[in-house]
Amino acid sequence: MIPTRLTAALGIERPVLLAPMDKVADARLASAVSAAGGLGLLGGGYCDREWLDEQLASVSRRVGCGFITWCLARNPELLDVALDHDPAAVFLSFGDPMPFADRIHEAGVPLLCQVCTVEEARRALAAGARVLVAQGGEAGGHGTGTRSTLTLVPELADLLAARSPDTLLVASGGVADGRGLAAALCLGADGVVMGSRFWASTEAAVSAAAQRRALASSGDDTVRQSVYDIVRAADWPSHYTGRVLRNDFVRQWHGHEQKLREDLPRLQEVFKNAKDNDDYSIGNVIVGEAIGLIDELEPVEAIIDRVVREASSILVST
Amino acid sequence: MIPTRLTAALGIERPVLLAPMDKVADARLASAVSAAGGLGLLGGGYCDREWLDEQLASVSRRVGCGFITWCLARNPELLDVALDHDPAAVFLSFGDPMPFADRIHEAGVPLLCQVCTVEEARRALAAGARVLVAQGGEAGGHGTGTRSTLTLVPELADLLAARSPDTLLVASGGVADGRGLAAALCLGADGVVMGSRFWASTEAAVSAAAQRRALASSGDDTVRQSVYDIVRAADWPSHYTGRVLRNDFVRQWHGHEQKLREDLPRLQEVFKNAKDNDDYSIGNVIVGEAIGLIDELEPVEAIIDRVVREASSILVST
Repeated sequence: MIPTRLTAALGIERPVLLAPMDKVADARLASAVSAAGGLGLLGGGYCDREWLDEQLASVSRRVGCGFITWCLARNPELLDVALDHDPAAVFLSFGDPMPFADRIHEAGVPLLCQVCTVEEARRALAAGARVLVAQGGEAGGHGTGTRSTLTLVPELADLLAARSPDTLLVASGGVADGRGLAAALCLGADGVVMGSRFWASTEAAVSAAAQRRALASSGDDTVRQSVYDIVRAADWPSHYTGRVLRNDFVRQWHGHEQKLREDLPRLQEVFKNAKDNDDYSIGNVIVGEAIGLIDELEPVEAIIDRVVREASSILVST
Repeated sequence: MIPTRLTAALGIERPVLLAPMDKVADARLASAVSAAGGLGLLGGGYCDREWLDEQLASVSRRVGCGFITWCLARNPELLDVALDHDPAAVFLSFGDPMPFADRIHEAGVPLLCQVCTVEEARRALAAGARVLVAQGGEAGGHGTGTRSTLTLVPELADLLAARSPDTLLVASGGVADGRGLAAALCLGADGVVMGSRFWASTEAAVSAAAQRRALASSGDDTVRQSVYDIVRAADWPSHYTGRVLRNDFVRQWHGHEQKLREDLPRLQEVFKNAKDNDDYSIGNVIVGEAIGLIDELEPVEAIIDRVVREASSILVST
């Protein structure tokens, strides 16, 4: 079972959390992770009220909810919506968690802060985070991409040991199997967040064409880029990039962002048509380097069972 | 002691290798690592014949020798120089190992190939590498910077299990303590290469000013860049970048490489003067993200003892 301080603090059985991937981490996927003994987190990311209401109303297990802080700042009422549903945790990513921390603490809900650097970790500690989620640049989706999980986790473990020993630490980015969970625990983490591995599950509401393309890929086939933020008009702060599968669109525009901007209306149409037609030579497939470790779709419960069993076995035999 | 397939194959006691850091990994440092039960590797990198002759003549223990393939291609006689000294291993980094592989195999010397991607790993297998050294972008110095150790190691472990189960695997990049060694073994590696940790040892012929600056740094203070290749006129292929400490020079020119090129003669003078005067606000300090895990200089033997002891303890108790 691998009980850790994290399982005790969150009242779960396995130290495995679902990355609150924007809209991919929906009621079905999050409920499945919680049902299998981990913690499901809804991907509230860009703060779509209608979507969030629907997911919160239809979860079948207790789950948490994730937000991007700079989106939540524009839609602060969504935090109340989430807190009204007695979430198992609130998971804040990117930017400044401070403006939301007090309301979360007052509701008695554990605050998980995703951090990409030591500097962000210090800010999360100042905001009273219960759990730091150390996200390395190998992760799919957005982040600073400046640190790797392998060094960020032990550096933050040392910071916590010196400054805030009761704050928990979770590794995020690059973990997709029992080897990754075992490694994370050795590095000083109390558990892991997995994204790509659950994205490639039978419960994930992801295009089958996107999943097929990803399952055939190596981690080499992923790249950190900003071209999809430009074409989606998602105004991410410039120091955040996003890891996706490299495809024709990325090959054409990554490194040529100015030209992309100059032809934006036409290319937004191209992008939209591609998404509508399930064409992932152009559409974005958001997965991390760990996709190279994933060869088939599996049910969430089978994934979590195997990850925990493998990790236990490695830690006993190594 | 943590015996692994690697210790057996290389005839060493501890699964810890010295990164063949260009000229930093000299006879004294490499001999110290071998004396402590690991494997020292001379940093033949840019292929300076005089330097290599001197180091090979003055090692006090059996060591290996590292080269950058595209430098060795211009100075192929240096491989004979190394092989004449019965090295414990030859460690080839970057580019294509194939042109040198036969001579190394014929000499009966283990060939270690550093690889940054799965694609490079396939090439190294074709060259008959005895050991793949999986280098993630968290490492100091050069690499593609496109993969992290945490995902590259297990993806290569799977490749080797399927294609070449007798080939060994070593993790390189981001490992500086027992947590990193334990994690690497969990991920499927047979051992580790450490660079920054030995760079920050009492035996390393490194400027004390550079070491002081590095020891006070976090992994956040490192960055992958090309400005020092430009100012040193080191003609690295463009897909390789190098991780260094961020300092005034990097802040000024990283992202403004064209302007740096336009003012090159003056800036080369500035750079040279800074190096001559131990000024590392301008001079390059080549360390990896793991520098954030290193707080003090220590003798090589104490480092290796502690890394192995810590790893053993973590693997027993986790």
